[in-house]
Amino acid sequence: MALDNGAKPEAVHDSTLVSKAPSNQVLLVLRLVAFFATAAATIVMALNKETKTIVVATIGSTPINATLTAKFQDTPAFVFFVIANGMASLHNLLMVVVEIWGHKFDYKGLRLAMIAVLDMMTVALASGGDGAATFMAELGKKGNSHARWNKICDKFGTFCDHGAGAIISSFVGLLLLVLITALSIGRLVKPRPATLSPV
Amino acid sequence: MALDNGAKPEAVHDSTLVSKAPSNQVLLVLRLVAFFATAAATIVMALNKETKTIVVATIGSTPINATLTAKFQDTPAFVFFVIANGMASLHNLLMVVVEIWGHKFDYKGLRLAMIAVLDMMTVALASGGDGAATFMAELGKKGNSHARWNKICDKFGTFCDHGAGAIISSFVGLLLLVLITALSIGRLVKPRPATLSPV
Repeated sequence: MALDNGAKPEAVHDSTLVSKAPSNQVLLVLRLVAFFATAAATIVMALNKETKTIVVATIGSTPINATLTAKFQDTPAFVFFVIANGMASLHNLLMVVVEIWGHKFDYKGLRLAMIAVLDMMTVALASGGDGAATFMAELGKKGNSHARWNKICDKFGTFCDHGAGAIISSFVGLLLLVLITALSIGRLVKPRPATLSPV
Repeated sequence: MALDNGAKPEAVHDSTLVSKAPSNQVLLVLRLVAFFATAAATIVMALNKETKTIVVATIGSTPINATLTAKFQDTPAFVFFVIANGMASLHNLLMVVVEIWGHKFDYKGLRLAMIAVLDMMTVALASGGDGAATFMAELGKKGNSHARWNKICDKFGTFCDHGAGAIISSFVGLLLLVLITALSIGRLVKPRPATLSPV
């Protein structure tokens, strides 16, 4: 009994130590970088808008102008991209909070597993958004002659450049998210003090 | 020492028992269903082709025909969809083999964690493919008036129906993959005999 009482405070002490282990510090830094990458992608894409005045005809010497606007809202894939990256940013921000202050909310040792599952779902969401936006951007850049869809990047260069920047930033975030999820899963393997001490 | 020698065979015996636990049987069945869903999506999309003869003009009473073919290869998003679902199918098939016969290839208890990480990466791949194909299909079905991309499903109805079937089947596979990955992660939490025995 005396040995049992001696072991328990040590286990609690260990679990607070674990949160300050180097691997968890790395995870926190990775989450912050991933947050900034996906947040940047969200903001750049959400503000992506280009208005252009094009001469469509000339009557005599009077040019007839048409004002065209390319907005991210006009393409459903880009709307999904903004939602997916916005949610990935929120997830990483929330997880940073949970990693730092969430140790008291543990339930049967499932906290780390729940974080890993949520990470995996965020990877799925971000990857879906990136896939959709990437191929839609490819279509805008090159067009598709078979479907007679003309490229639009020759007309809206700035719109395409901003979109490309957002997609690249988002892919950096996605790669970091995959790495973070792998670390989250790897964390579960370590023989934690909780499993060694009798419950 | 005698206690140590007695514990080790028990741990080995337990780990073979774990492979026959109900949760692992469920996982195997889910993997097989996910395999069939993604394999069906791969095959249906890879065989998706529609040839149509359209009257483009009439000279006198002689119709001038044009033969148009809609192929999945013409859209990069659908090519990626086929690759992603094909790889997801292979992954699930391989993991079924590993779950049944792979117990001897364990390395420091990391086998289950590696399976979970590979599952997560497959989720990312399949989700990317599904996102790309879904929004390209949406474009084919509805068009995009802002970019002046006309819908093509009014001309190639069968092509679109087959594509929609493949995408639905692929989403069933993706949902199962997310569930499988969550179970793979959950499996790591259980206090396994390997962590309790001294290494």
